Amino acid sequence: MYLHTEQLINEIVVDEPDPAAANALQEGLGGQFGEMRTMMQYLFQSMNFRGDPASKPYKDLLQGVGTEEISHVELIGTTIARLLDGSPEYQGKKTDSVDKPGAGGATPLKIALDTGNIHHYLVGAQGALPVDAVGNPWSGSYVYNSGNLVLDLLYNLMLESTGRLQKCRIYEMTDNKAARSTIAYLIVRDQAHENAFAKALESLGVNWGGVLPIPKTNAEKFPEVKKLLDKGLQSIQYTFSGDNLSQAGKLYRGASPSNDGTELSTAVMPEGVPITIAPERREEFSPGLDAELLSLIQATAEIELKNADAPGE
Amino acid sequence: MYLHTEQLINEIVVDEPDPAAANALQEGLGGQFGEMRTMMQYLFQSMNFRGDPASKPYKDLLQGVGTEEISHVELIGTTIARLLDGSPEYQGKKTDSVDKPGAGGATPLKIALDTGNIHHYLVGAQGALPVDAVGNPWSGSYVYNSGNLVLDLLYNLMLESTGRLQKCRIYEMTDNKAARSTIAYLIVRDQAHENAFAKALESLGVNWGGVLPIPKTNAEKFPEVKKLLDKGLQSIQYTFSGDNLSQAGKLYRGASPSNDGTELSTAVMPEGVPITIAPERREEFSPGLDAELLSLIQATAEIELKNADAPGE
Amino acid sequence: MYLHTEQLINEIVVDEPDPAAANALQEGLGGQFGEMRTMMQYLFQSMNFRGDPASKPYKDLLQGVGTEEISHVELIGTTIARLLDGSPEYQGKKTDSVDKPGAGGATPLKIALDTGNIHHYLVGAQGALPVDAVGNPWSGSYVYNSGNLVLDLLYNLMLESTGRLQKCRIYEMTDNKAARSTIAYLIVRDQAHENAFAKALESLGVNWGGVLPIPKTNAEKFPEVKKLLDKGLQSIQYTFSGDNLSQAGKLYRGASPSNDGTELSTAVMPEGVPITIAPERREEFSPGLDAELLSLIQATAEIELKNADAPGE
Amino acid sequence: MYLHTEQLINEIVVDEPDPAAANALQEGLGGQFGEMRTMMQYLFQSMNFRGDPASKPYKDLLQGVGTEEISHVELIGTTIARLLDGSPEYQGKKTDSVDKPGAGGATPLKIALDTGNIHHYLVGAQGALPVDAVGNPWSGSYVYNSGNLVLDLLYNLMLESTGRLQKCRIYEMTDNKAARSTIAYLIVRDQAHENAFAKALESLGVNWGGVLPIPKTNAEKFPEVKKLLDKGLQSIQYTFSGDNLSQAGKLYRGASPSNDGTELSTAVMPEGVPITIAPERREEFSPGLDAELLSLIQATAEIELKNADAPGE
Amino acid sequence: MYLHTEQLINEIVVDEPDPAAANALQEGLGGQFGEMRTMMQYLFQSMNFRGDPASKPYKDLLQGVGTEEISHVELIGTTIARLLDGSPEYQGKKTDSVDKPGAGGATPLKIALDTGNIHHYLVGAQGALPVDAVGNPWSGSYVYNSGNLVLDLLYNLMLESTGRLQKCRIYEMTDNKAARSTIAYLIVRDQAHENAFAKALESLGVNWGGVLPIPKTNAEKFPEVKKLLDKGLQSIQYTFSGDNLSQAGKLYRGASPSNDGTELSTAVMPEGVPITIAPERREEFSPGLDAELLSLIQATAEIELKNADAPGE
Amino acid sequence: MYLHTEQLINEIVVDEPDPAAANALQEGLGGQFGEMRTMMQYLFQSMNFRGDPASKPYKDLLQGVGTEEISHVELIGTTIARLLDGSPEYQGKKTDSVDKPGAGGATPLKIALDTGNIHHYLVGAQGALPVDAVGNPWSGSYVYNSGNLVLDLLYNLMLESTGRLQKCRIYEMTDNKAARSTIAYLIVRDQAHENAFAKALESLGVNWGGVLPIPKTNAEKFPEVKKLLDKGLQSIQYTFSGDNLSQAGKLYRGASPSNDGTELSTAVMPEGVPITIAPERREEFSPGLDAELLSLIQATAEIELKNADAPGE
Repeated sequence: MYLHTEQLINEIVVDEPDPAAANALQEGLGGQFGEMRTMMQYLFQSMNFRGDPASKPYKDLLQGVGTEEISHVELIGTTIARLLDGSPEYQGKKTDSVDKPGAGGATPLKIALDTGNIHHYLVGAQGALPVDAVGNPWSGSYVYNSGNLVLDLLYNLMLESTGRLQKCRIYEMTDNKAARSTIAYLIVRDQAHENAFAKALESLGVNWGGVLPIPKTNAEKFPEVKKLLDKGLQSIQYTFSGDNLSQAGKLYRGASPSNDGTELSTAVMPEGVPITIAPERREEFSPGLDAELLSLIQATAEIELKNADAPGE
Repeated sequence: MYLHTEQLINEIVVDEPDPAAANALQEGLGGQFGEMRTMMQYLFQSMNFRGDPASKPYKDLLQGVGTEEISHVELIGTTIARLLDGSPEYQGKKTDSVDKPGAGGATPLKIALDTGNIHHYLVGAQGALPVDAVGNPWSGSYVYNSGNLVLDLLYNLMLESTGRLQKCRIYEMTDNKAARSTIAYLIVRDQAHENAFAKALESLGVNWGGVLPIPKTNAEKFPEVKKLLDKGLQSIQYTFSGDNLSQAGKLYRGASPSNDGTELSTAVMPEGVPITIAPERREEFSPGLDAELLSLIQATAEIELKNADAPGE
Repeated sequence: MYLHTEQLINEIVVDEPDPAAANALQEGLGGQFGEMRTMMQYLFQSMNFRGDPASKPYKDLLQGVGTEEISHVELIGTTIARLLDGSPEYQGKKTDSVDKPGAGGATPLKIALDTGNIHHYLVGAQGALPVDAVGNPWSGSYVYNSGNLVLDLLYNLMLESTGRLQKCRIYEMTDNKAARSTIAYLIVRDQAHENAFAKALESLGVNWGGVLPIPKTNAEKFPEVKKLLDKGLQSIQYTFSGDNLSQAGKLYRGASPSNDGTELSTAVMPEGVPITIAPERREEFSPGLDAELLSLIQATAEIELKNADAPGE
Repeated sequence: MYLHTEQLINEIVVDEPDPAAANALQEGLGGQFGEMRTMMQYLFQSMNFRGDPASKPYKDLLQGVGTEEISHVELIGTTIARLLDGSPEYQGKKTDSVDKPGAGGATPLKIALDTGNIHHYLVGAQGALPVDAVGNPWSGSYVYNSGNLVLDLLYNLMLESTGRLQKCRIYEMTDNKAARSTIAYLIVRDQAHENAFAKALESLGVNWGGVLPIPKTNAEKFPEVKKLLDKGLQSIQYTFSGDNLSQAGKLYRGASPSNDGTELSTAVMPEGVPITIAPERREEFSPGLDAELLSLIQATAEIELKNADAPGE
Repeated sequence: MYLHTEQLINEIVVDEPDPAAANALQEGLGGQFGEMRTMMQYLFQSMNFRGDPASKPYKDLLQGVGTEEISHVELIGTTIARLLDGSPEYQGKKTDSVDKPGAGGATPLKIALDTGNIHHYLVGAQGALPVDAVGNPWSGSYVYNSGNLVLDLLYNLMLESTGRLQKCRIYEMTDNKAARSTIAYLIVRDQAHENAFAKALESLGVNWGGVLPIPKTNAEKFPEVKKLLDKGLQSIQYTFSGDNLSQAGKLYRGASPSNDGTELSTAVMPEGVPITIAPERREEFSPGLDAELLSLIQATAEIELKNADAPGE
Repeated sequence: MYLHTEQLINEIVVDEPDPAAANALQEGLGGQFGEMRTMMQYLFQSMNFRGDPASKPYKDLLQGVGTEEISHVELIGTTIARLLDGSPEYQGKKTDSVDKPGAGGATPLKIALDTGNIHHYLVGAQGALPVDAVGNPWSGSYVYNSGNLVLDLLYNLMLESTGRLQKCRIYEMTDNKAARSTIAYLIVRDQAHENAFAKALESLGVNWGGVLPIPKTNAEKFPEVKKLLDKGLQSIQYTFSGDNLSQAGKLYRGASPSNDGTELSTAVMPEGVPITIAPERREEFSPGLDAELLSLIQATAEIELKNADAPGE
């Protein structure tokens, strides 16, 4: 079972809207090597896990990383939504042209025709989509779960490294600070997960020599990344274990396989940052309520909530 | 952010393996109207939610149902894996034929050639797959999130009702008790979610008359379903809110739109049932470890875990 | 603009239900070379047609065949629905077991687990689906419309011949009379369309020698086919032209390129057979109405209809 | 059976070519909530319809709207083709550069590299494609037909509303008059269909309160839309019934559920506008005939057509 | 550039037809981890290879394995076609029922309705298809080519191991000798390729300890596999280098990383087995020629061929 | 079996990088009518070929053209990779900004956000992808192999003609010399293959009159094409037969069906042009090696290769 708290796993720096950056980030959300994929892959691997009871730390490692990835989906999705707010109203064209088209001579949503993915404005309401950066919908065929422990770990190591490689490339594609704050965080956490799967393979006898981390580029030359590396965030593994039964810490310990001189350690979860509700977008008919419907909502919001006791508890 | 506890949201009754039933249940997991879809749809709708601050109960309702769906994915996926354990070893053919093919004249995995989805034995290791009952991979194109609040609620009501319709059909396709215990639970929870979205539309002025629940069939004639209805499980909404900030209870209250005379109420989460690790399947090379690798794992498991303090805590 | 009449283009012979045959027929409906594809391909080719005004007969030929294909979709879809009615009630198990599961010890829909496509019973309510015989959904990528007249005609000739080839194979897969009555009709009409596109290429200078029809098998050895060939149905082209403006007849005339000694001729449309409403399937919750909803419907049906005058008329 | 008349259902205003607008309109043609989808969904729902004979008005409503959608496909597809005619020749670059590349220093089709969908120039010949605005091919998996009447009506209401929402967004993306004339017409007709499905649900007891139409935006502020609303086009339902047997008028009557004070009424079909043949595009090799082939075609066109009598008539 | 010789890379043992086994083998041909995928992945990796000139042995290794995979596609495809020859004529029902349907009371192709993939008989003519074992078409999205050398090698190692894992599972699903002869050969060659990529990573510093080969099951317990292992076929790498310029041998040398005590070595290509033409299948209209067309072909075959000299032409 | 030589089938002229042209060429590589498709289609048709032994020339023709297409994949893929080298370093922005982002104020990879397919920079490392010009992955569903000889030949003729049509369109979209050198070569070779399949159908009795080649546009007006036509390259067929057993020359002889007055002739293979290794792209982390890993590679390259004898030879 899962619980949710109203917190983002990392803070999104405030910057200008940037639909092109939003589209590049879609690869990190809905791409073949993005967060939806890692999330689903590890949740399936944990759910279908087979083995000797002694292998519980391996299952717990998969479950813990998988649970973190749900929060990564939440983080990168929210970042995309914020980057898309570069719509007509934002750009100083705040007239009543939206409800009275042609009033100011401008076409309100024409920005959408030149953007990376027109669906951001046409199918969604300036929000994240479960697709990659060229618009391919996420596919269940991405999920790899052979059931063979060594293969699953090897694939996961490759998967995290590819995710990190792609995010390094995205970092270099945009200098938008909102985009980079999330990308930098995910580069560092991908390295933490690389360490996790590499370490699990070390426990089975592999010695990685000097090939890790992948890519070998010195991501610490990216300032936002360096700040997080200095905090050692690449060497901590969270269990996100609500009942603290996870044994993943048995695997994630000792020297980092990334050869950066750090020691690996385990914690339950980071602190987080409060989630806020995104503003309306009238030109997208979102939420699309007129005054009457809105007043019904406001009436609902004023009702005193008395939490009922549930029979299941 | 999300937390995980090592508990299934409902108990899976023990019964014989049944690969055909397992395949039918795939529709409820990875089908167009299955749990992966409801989960993703509500998480995207909550993440991209726009509106007046007063509309927080609507966002919280979406988030709460979405979080519950992750646990439903876990439940139905685990049920499928258990139903698939009807492999060679189970069926009394427990010889050493797996490692010595042809030893007994039997082909160990030939069961796979006649099963609903050969991938259950060929691509996975007798575990659940992110596909539907005819093998189509789950697709991101299923997710609906128009951003228009009325439309999103209307779609969700239709989605839960269709999910309930399909599960009623699956119920009638198999009498396997393991399959039925999970299907019955999900039929009742789908009705709870139907109630949630119907009630939210009531708050905006719709009067449903006598059309709910959909389908109108008396599911209480299914004994496993009736037991849960008698407990009132169709009229409780869980928030799965780890910090108890959810305001979904403001919407989920009063008389049930299902016309069954119950009052709606809200709770944080149900009790749950401990998760166990699935047994090995040597004929599937899962986990595929030889004695040497296994002893390395057992050595790891004996290490005393000393949980490190994390900087983020 | 299109009009519809409540008639099927050919009669469906009555025979036993046969879900396996229904599934084979899905290839003829939603397969890459099925009726949905020919329909869409010709409608797009006609809609996007470019050329000298003198080329109108070519556009009209495409439009006429395309319009006929909509009626073929209707015919084969209806045939599939009838072949699927081999559900619990039909098979003499007509007890109240559907609404009282387990009453008779039987699982009502278990037939679905062994059928060609479980979606016929799980996603649809024993009706046709827009998929092929292995469950692949129909795809817009099938449609070919290069805009080059010679190429489009050449493709269409190949497409009709492939459709005819596949239907000859389906004919040999089943001896169900309902299935064969529709398949035989479509084999003959595919040949009529082969003739149409072959003749149009003849008008541009090609001489087909003895290669037509494709396949060269003597389909007249199939009794149901022979009956239609004897009526000359392979050598008539319908325009389905509601305003009788079609000039397709300028192309479809003279000796048949199929070398069967017939002369080609043109007509508006065949006579047709009245369409009836399919019976309920309570075990599929279709239409899923309880007594109260049904009485509301019956009340509606009794209202005297007074056709309003429309401004557009 | 279906008939075709050589008329478009609404007039397309003449304006400049606009490939970006053409691409946005593709969503309305081949998108998940576009006209190909509504057309196919209603035709399947009508074909597979099950129920008491008294339910014929519901089947007829589905059939009538479905038939209208074929004409909408024709209308929006033709509009896209016209918007794509902004190719080299149009833009005043009419030299012989097409057949003599490089003659003028310009690359004739380079416009295609910057357009919304390069396939409009590369795969098709400046014509409509069965894809959405990001190039995804239309998929049979879009079609929803549960067989449960309430669910199918609820889905259709949501589908028409989503179509209307997306078209309102497209309206605001472009001020091209050709594009807007078709979009405005479809916005109003989508509302007519919203009314149809909402009214059918009213007949089953639902009271919509003030939530309709969806979106609630005042589309009458779009001038092209207002003109059609003033004619009452949102409150007329066409049967497109060639034999006038449709009973859909029993459902589509009384006060509009859109709360606009109009009364609903039914007619057979609107007047329409003659269809013309699109001009050649030599740079696209469309129709790709040389002088010799063209003269063969012209010879064919001069043949006196003597319509043969068909046995089927 | 590529050359072809009329030889299969390994002999296919003769055995009974077996459509179910044919379908399982489709995973090895067109599945996500099958031969079409390895072939395309390595050819793209070689084609897009970037690096210091000193890295040529790595490019050559990729090219050599990729070229071998084209021959594997040929081998497994041919095996599938042979396994599918279990059609009507084969099974002793050799009557004239094919051309005279119903003559003997039997439906000639009814076997197709119960087979693994009906498309084997309906779309193809008892030949291999580019799909996996549940009918999903092969997809370009399978190809992995990050451009990062370490990642590409790591992926390839995982890919070959997964291919080997799946083939071990297929081996256990069938005891058909034709199927097993090809599967056994590919199990051993997959291990040779595992060795190749593992060795290349060794050259970059990785020490695999005892984890290879994957899966760890003792495939030598499969008799057909053991025979090939005894010949050392798992430790030879072919270059398939027509001009003998490949430097792959610089990498594939020294002790095997599979810990089986063998030394790795390199050769150009194996001997091979002549390819023969498959027999006709009249019931599939394949090749579908009547006597007249066949005589035209035979006349062509008798023409004296005078091979022109070409190289520079 | 297949052999590879380190030669491209035609020379790629050197010109400026041009990512937009690279993207257009993707249609020729991974599009529905591109080289991957022709390659796979003919290899499957040859592999699954059924017929009288006299029909060997037809099988050999398919095999020979199919083998040539593998070299076309290599040629067009390499061309795309070269066209993509318009990355930051190339464009004179060669600073240390790649490893020190923001150093010069520029974002190194921002070019990727405006390019035809962002995946060229994000998923691949400025290399070719197995997708079409709008990013759709290549699909196995493209492959046509009915088993009926006449139909397969007819399809292939249409396929080559469509490929040629699309390449003529691409030619007109760009004046980049590297792109045009490859496109011109493929236009001429497509015509050679059109001739091959048209001639094979002539051997079965068809007379093409004046419709070939398709498209009828005078491609000789494209200067790069004319140069190759003057050499007669459209009238030579290569067998790529390593053991010279091909009998394709029996079909490819006599007057060209393209009506250009040439005689058809057959050769084994053309001369070719040496393949070189592409330069590194550090900003793409390709090959992504640091100094230490590179020195390991260089050490490997210095090892003296002693080619082992293989048992299979």
